Amino acid sequence: LDIPNKLKDAVDQFSKIPGIGNKTALRQCLHLTNWGRTELVNFGAAISALADINRCEDCGVFCDDERCSVCMDHKREKTICVVETINDYMAIENSNQYRGLYHVLGGVLNPLLGIGPDSLSIDKLKERVLRLEVNHLILAVNPSVEGDATCAFLKQVLPASIQIDRIGFGIPIGGSLEYVDSLTISKALENRKKM
Amino acid sequence: LDIPNKLKDAVDQFSKIPGIGNKTALRQCLHLTNWGRTELVNFGAAISALADINRCEDCGVFCDDERCSVCMDHKREKTICVVETINDYMAIENSNQYRGLYHVLGGVLNPLLGIGPDSLSIDKLKERVLRLEVNHLILAVNPSVEGDATCAFLKQVLPASIQIDRIGFGIPIGGSLEYVDSLTISKALENRKKM
Repeated sequence: LDIPNKLKDAVDQFSKIPGIGNKTALRQCLHLTNWGRTELVNFGAAISALADINRCEDCGVFCDDERCSVCMDHKREKTICVVETINDYMAIENSNQYRGLYHVLGGVLNPLLGIGPDSLSIDKLKERVLRLEVNHLILAVNPSVEGDATCAFLKQVLPASIQIDRIGFGIPIGGSLEYVDSLTISKALENRKKM
Repeated sequence: LDIPNKLKDAVDQFSKIPGIGNKTALRQCLHLTNWGRTELVNFGAAISALADINRCEDCGVFCDDERCSVCMDHKREKTICVVETINDYMAIENSNQYRGLYHVLGGVLNPLLGIGPDSLSIDKLKERVLRLEVNHLILAVNPSVEGDATCAFLKQVLPASIQIDRIGFGIPIGGSLEYVDSLTISKALENRKKM
């Protein structure tokens, strides 16, 4: 069955989003063909405008000015929480359990994908640690081989005087031992606390 | 947590697509923020371009010229299969089981939503039936209260000389009686065939 090129283009674009396959993309685009011209133009413009979202010069999260509201907030503690992505920053900030600063690395080291230290915001982190006289860093990097390597690398390149912690791993609250993988159980046993 | 207006706009647009909630839309838009400017502009343009897809003047399916390839194909049988949407047309055409013409109604009658006969492509259907001297119509309208009413209405307004069939309802192939709803079972019993 022939579908028009314009539809095919839109389907191709949609299916580039993770979690959207060709069939879902086609269904979504067919739905969009029922929208009015103005609505479609607005949708298209909203997507193009994503290219213009500012990022904080310091920590790398979204912001409207040069620096984000967290970096501008002088009441924040002089601790930096290092995260991989802005999604992770949002998750932590939404938990309302942390009152320090952030730093978005932009990923983790992955030599196979060609992601070396220069692809990540590591130099900026070093500069901020010295400039802001931070002496406490929390690495909120996800547990994975690459994440572990990235944490080890950061520990190496940052001044030895700084206390560097990594967030704790274990059974999630509401989780069940029965359904948790054995690596998480081994981490949970390792991280046990005296009651 | 504040998110930038540009991100919020895109999230709002995405969550207008059926099947995409606010959380999915946010995750997808956060992913898009990692795309390059050119990629985002292309994506946006592809969506705006959906407004320019031509529809066949006769049957209403997508086409590049004034009339679609099905309507231009003189080998097609002089039967019209009436469907609600272009999605339904695609499903039937992909099955390769039908070699006649199509007609996209654009929905079903729904007085509660203000969809009357004038909102659907019914006058055009009448005109085509007379012009093309079609004497066989297949109503491939989905089974629902509104679908049933629409079929009854079409039967009423079309010339009585035309044979009008509705597609059969019953247990889908590969389906299991155990999991099928009772309305489908009653339709399947009603539509039983002598072996």
